[in-house]
Amino acid sequence: MKITASSIWSSLKEIRQHSPVIHNITNYVVMNNSANALLALGASPVMAHAEEEVEDMVNIAGALVINIGTLSPYWIRAMFRAAYQAKDRNIPIILDPVGAGATVYRTTTARELIQEVPPSIIRGNASEILALLEEEVKTKGVESTCASHTAVDIAHQLNRTYGSVICVSGETDYIIYGDDVTKIMNGHPMMTKVTGMGCIATALCGAFAAVNHAFAEATAQAMAVMGIAGEIGVKDVPGPGSLQVRFLDALYRLSEEDIKRYLRTDG
Amino acid sequence: MKITASSIWSSLKEIRQHSPVIHNITNYVVMNNSANALLALGASPVMAHAEEEVEDMVNIAGALVINIGTLSPYWIRAMFRAAYQAKDRNIPIILDPVGAGATVYRTTTARELIQEVPPSIIRGNASEILALLEEEVKTKGVESTCASHTAVDIAHQLNRTYGSVICVSGETDYIIYGDDVTKIMNGHPMMTKVTGMGCIATALCGAFAAVNHAFAEATAQAMAVMGIAGEIGVKDVPGPGSLQVRFLDALYRLSEEDIKRYLRTDG
Amino acid sequence: MKITASSIWSSLKEIRQHSPVIHNITNYVVMNNSANALLALGASPVMAHAEEEVEDMVNIAGALVINIGTLSPYWIRAMFRAAYQAKDRNIPIILDPVGAGATVYRTTTARELIQEVPPSIIRGNASEILALLEEEVKTKGVESTCASHTAVDIAHQLNRTYGSVICVSGETDYIIYGDDVTKIMNGHPMMTKVTGMGCIATALCGAFAAVNHAFAEATAQAMAVMGIAGEIGVKDVPGPGSLQVRFLDALYRLSEEDIKRYLRTDG
Repeated sequence: MKITASSIWSSLKEIRQHSPVIHNITNYVVMNNSANALLALGASPVMAHAEEEVEDMVNIAGALVINIGTLSPYWIRAMFRAAYQAKDRNIPIILDPVGAGATVYRTTTARELIQEVPPSIIRGNASEILALLEEEVKTKGVESTCASHTAVDIAHQLNRTYGSVICVSGETDYIIYGDDVTKIMNGHPMMTKVTGMGCIATALCGAFAAVNHAFAEATAQAMAVMGIAGEIGVKDVPGPGSLQVRFLDALYRLSEEDIKRYLRTDG
Repeated sequence: MKITASSIWSSLKEIRQHSPVIHNITNYVVMNNSANALLALGASPVMAHAEEEVEDMVNIAGALVINIGTLSPYWIRAMFRAAYQAKDRNIPIILDPVGAGATVYRTTTARELIQEVPPSIIRGNASEILALLEEEVKTKGVESTCASHTAVDIAHQLNRTYGSVICVSGETDYIIYGDDVTKIMNGHPMMTKVTGMGCIATALCGAFAAVNHAFAEATAQAMAVMGIAGEIGVKDVPGPGSLQVRFLDALYRLSEEDIKRYLRTDG
Repeated sequence: MKITASSIWSSLKEIRQHSPVIHNITNYVVMNNSANALLALGASPVMAHAEEEVEDMVNIAGALVINIGTLSPYWIRAMFRAAYQAKDRNIPIILDPVGAGATVYRTTTARELIQEVPPSIIRGNASEILALLEEEVKTKGVESTCASHTAVDIAHQLNRTYGSVICVSGETDYIIYGDDVTKIMNGHPMMTKVTGMGCIATALCGAFAAVNHAFAEATAQAMAVMGIAGEIGVKDVPGPGSLQVRFLDALYRLSEEDIKRYLRTDG
């Protein structure tokens, strides 16, 4: 798939103009960051996890982002209810299987969600993606330790089975859909020292999917914007504290010129 | 009502000197920001939401701030228990009806809280305030889409019915109490790109109400300090990431001179 | 106990090299900060609180950090399950009794945890440590109001009874173990204006304990690194918003030279 700066810019303008509501059922650690990143991008984040209201919230949303980073039974029930409602309304569902492979609870929850309500997009690191199908994955906390080429194989298999766009993120992000593999090479290693950067990437996928229903393209656009904002944000910063701040500034200011200058893709 | 820089400064000095404990039952997204803003202002924030301890916490607090931004049944029960205890102890209750109008669950919860334990102060944007009485309000996520003049009418009606000071916040903040409408014109549009700025405003109302039991004045003072710190914080920043940081710095350093120079009010 | 810059540096290098997984069951307010501080230090934070998965998570962790800052019954059950699992696996447990003394619920929970599964390390401010044994402690929110010399007496008593290393933190941090009292004098008053700095200190104790099973030394090392990063971070900053950011940058960049230059200890 060919990812161009002008297509990214076109979607970004759509987001800024229409401010799609992105409904996040996400983990406690990254809620603030995810909301701020979506705001800086131009979208309208909402966070709601009560079984009693998730369906109402899905009804006003342009995308539903589900992130399993800090699970508990009540939240899981809400995730399923929201997902079914999103499916009924035909709005994109984006899943972040944070820590799949690290505990049985996460692996099982992620797999059940995918089987019952196949998401439009699944974004995870290599070990998380592997854990969605493989029986034995070694996970070090929520960090990946698997070779990404294997995760790409699994991603193809997931895509064939469930139809979801799969994004295996890492130094290079692989976006898998059908026979197509698009690579995004943007980003910076220091981003791994800021918590929730992966979760933010997933939230941005939600914003792009809300305005671009070609979900593979939307995913690649989101990952490119994520990486480019990281590269701009990291300039001259002394460490990850400053990077977190400047990343949001960069998202907010991102121009077509920036995208043209920084975009690195084989797509 | 006449709001002067010297009255604001006087309350701010009280807060810095006595560090009133502000008990927050608030949403997951903004807890960190609210705590940091209260600390930067000079108050002592506590966050506690367990039914088992909210009454004890209210007992050591100078104000109770209730924010419905991420509800669930357990939290709602705690909000009611804390509110009844605050009423018994006669300490101010400040309510932020985040997302009222967006879902039935939020609208109903906010209305029941107001009916059962009328707050001293209610602060929300126009659509949230409208949703507290009107049957049909269109909400875009948690953002307002209603003309604020209608919200001011509803605010008067709420004030007459429940006695609460009502603050309709936006580009201009309207503080309604009895026949009086005080306007605060401080603030900056980029503040809407930082999550939780409204919630922080409500938390600051708690701090001012703890030291100034003329609640309409306390609300106007808090909104002015909020807007002024935003205007100072936004200077020379490239985007909302930096604004969030500098806003806290500005709150921490706020001087009588700053307040005099920046205050814009018709009160 | 003698705390040297080279011993601190040696432990810090271990953390950076092996990135131990630190499992945190902590409060909502500081989750993001704690995760970021552990990442900046070089460790691998995970946050998980579900009864259904805490044991699995402990199984991949090098230390378990329990922080009672925002309790509820479900979380307490998870804390106990995780603590028992950590004890079985013989990995260090670090307890932060946030707000002990402020409510009966917190005091009781902290005491029961200590009695049932004595932690390797307990870190709190003076009033929190006092509340673990004394009947009558006046707490102002989660802030200490007690003279620290009394807390040190109580700390000795706690250490004798439960065997835990006790850290009474404040302007001077006291690390108590057996007859030994080590003092760390690093830090800066503005750190008290950033929420969660105490909680971060406890999380860092977890990281140092994961690589250094001489727990009293590990605690002193963590408190020194905490204070030094605060002193470096506070340089030229206008307020606590910026301090929070620069503190993380300083943790990330901390060198042996920094530690040598800044370390202030009687140990």
